[in-house]
Amino acid sequence: MCSNCDYTIHGRHHHYGWDHSIPPVETVAPGSRLEFNCLDSGSGHFTADSTVADVSTVDFTKVNPVTGPIYVDGAKPGDALKVTIEHFKPSGFGWTANIPGFGLLADQFAEPALTLWKYDPATLAPAAFGEFGRVPLKPFAGTIGLAPAEPGLHSVVPPRRVGGNLDIRDLAAGTTLYLPVEVEGALFSIGDTHAAQGDGEVCGTAIESAMDVVLKLELVKDANLRMPRFTTPGPVTRHLDAEGYEVTTGIGSDLMEGARAAVSGMIDLLCATRGMKPEDAYMLCSVCGDLRISEIVDQPNWVVSFYFPRIVFA
Amino acid sequence: MCSNCDYTIHGRHHHYGWDHSIPPVETVAPGSRLEFNCLDSGSGHFTADSTVADVSTVDFTKVNPVTGPIYVDGAKPGDALKVTIEHFKPSGFGWTANIPGFGLLADQFAEPALTLWKYDPATLAPAAFGEFGRVPLKPFAGTIGLAPAEPGLHSVVPPRRVGGNLDIRDLAAGTTLYLPVEVEGALFSIGDTHAAQGDGEVCGTAIESAMDVVLKLELVKDANLRMPRFTTPGPVTRHLDAEGYEVTTGIGSDLMEGARAAVSGMIDLLCATRGMKPEDAYMLCSVCGDLRISEIVDQPNWVVSFYFPRIVFA
Repeated sequence: MCSNCDYTIHGRHHHYGWDHSIPPVETVAPGSRLEFNCLDSGSGHFTADSTVADVSTVDFTKVNPVTGPIYVDGAKPGDALKVTIEHFKPSGFGWTANIPGFGLLADQFAEPALTLWKYDPATLAPAAFGEFGRVPLKPFAGTIGLAPAEPGLHSVVPPRRVGGNLDIRDLAAGTTLYLPVEVEGALFSIGDTHAAQGDGEVCGTAIESAMDVVLKLELVKDANLRMPRFTTPGPVTRHLDAEGYEVTTGIGSDLMEGARAAVSGMIDLLCATRGMKPEDAYMLCSVCGDLRISEIVDQPNWVVSFYFPRIVFA
Repeated sequence: MCSNCDYTIHGRHHHYGWDHSIPPVETVAPGSRLEFNCLDSGSGHFTADSTVADVSTVDFTKVNPVTGPIYVDGAKPGDALKVTIEHFKPSGFGWTANIPGFGLLADQFAEPALTLWKYDPATLAPAAFGEFGRVPLKPFAGTIGLAPAEPGLHSVVPPRRVGGNLDIRDLAAGTTLYLPVEVEGALFSIGDTHAAQGDGEVCGTAIESAMDVVLKLELVKDANLRMPRFTTPGPVTRHLDAEGYEVTTGIGSDLMEGARAAVSGMIDLLCATRGMKPEDAYMLCSVCGDLRISEIVDQPNWVVSFYFPRIVFA
């Protein structure tokens, strides 16, 4: 329990997809501090006893539940909701899957795969990936957003200008996020908590892990943001950069193909140098490797690079 | 002068564009250490006395000279050239320009702009950007590559699988780069040295600055690399990440448009909060801000984020 919170929003108050007609579970004043109980993105489908066979029985009508929505008193279209992300209480269990049809290299990874994670929620010590290495952890919420103005039910999968499934791995404790408000009350929801993820989330899943999140909601009147923005108070990669990186590149006229080439190159490198199976390398890349755009101006070819942190094998 | 080098390759030995018929200036054994004198990407067009009017008189037949080529004895197609980047001796003078028609937001920045930089080449202390802030420095070579197999003269502007104008800001001292060899002797050249650049090089130029570079050339036989890759021995952003980042996002189904939206958002933010002119904010973003792909799997919308280091204004 959060001792200095004004509200606790329990996990039973979750919804699937965004719809501004979903009744709010609570109405709060700007400046309120709330604790959210977030289910994992599989709604608890995977447990410590799961096997790869369980990937095939995921119920896609019940992926990515978000806890909420919260009506923020006085919020109006054109305002920004300022979300100060204060604290995560992770569960200690997580999963990463290759779900056929989903992910950057879906055409190359047609078979389901599953990794289960056990980590210490108190110390957040790097989590073992089999015998291969250990992945540094930094909890965050993959899905954090507001109801869009457009009526009807909208899939939770794509992020939008009101946020949602942003999967930005730096929305960690200490970060302040600003989201464009499109409806009265803002209608804030959060879920899809991750214990770790690299930039890109390349296999389509992170270390998916149920958590409680404590945050503060405030309003910035008439901010007129076009897209979400955020401020991190300090470094974002020092938990994993001490040993440097192995980096592969993708060069060409299409950023998507460049990203695919860079990630494919890293999977090949990990398989060749670490004896990993491709599907394991793919999942490992998703939870700790970063896609960066090295250059986007040297016409007609751009460079996308994939950074894999060497500390995983240290 | 480099006391432990086997060769010094002077700046007069430069060429414009890649062509495997350009005669090598030197033939070296694998394992050789070389010092290269690199001109800046404007072939010395800009000096401490330059004004914005000089942007219009850039001779585009003389941009991006590279020093070389070097024939590495025994290098054959299918091998990789291993380049250990050991040391940079920067000049202390640099320039950044918005060159009309060039850059990620060329449609929005039609007028030329120029920033001149003076920095301490011994201490590499952060360089002042007018009254606005100070940019941390990390020298690297923007263009580093090999002659392609395809006959004829190829523009130096686009990078290719043999490297070239990669503009990867982490190809700094200590990094080991592996380049796919396509022709006998590899035919290595280097130039376009930068005192600082962010991931993306969004306005099209970095802190362009003449430098000497010391590096070692070795061969990895039959490496059969598809694309360049590299290894950094340690962290890559600790010179600028201590105060965290301001981050803007671009969300949508096209990575290029997402990148453009994220950079535009940062320019707007810098203008609103720091009183900068848009062209100054654009150039500043290019020399220190980073484009990252936050997620590339949540169909049909991807998130590109632009990270601006707060230390610039600290």
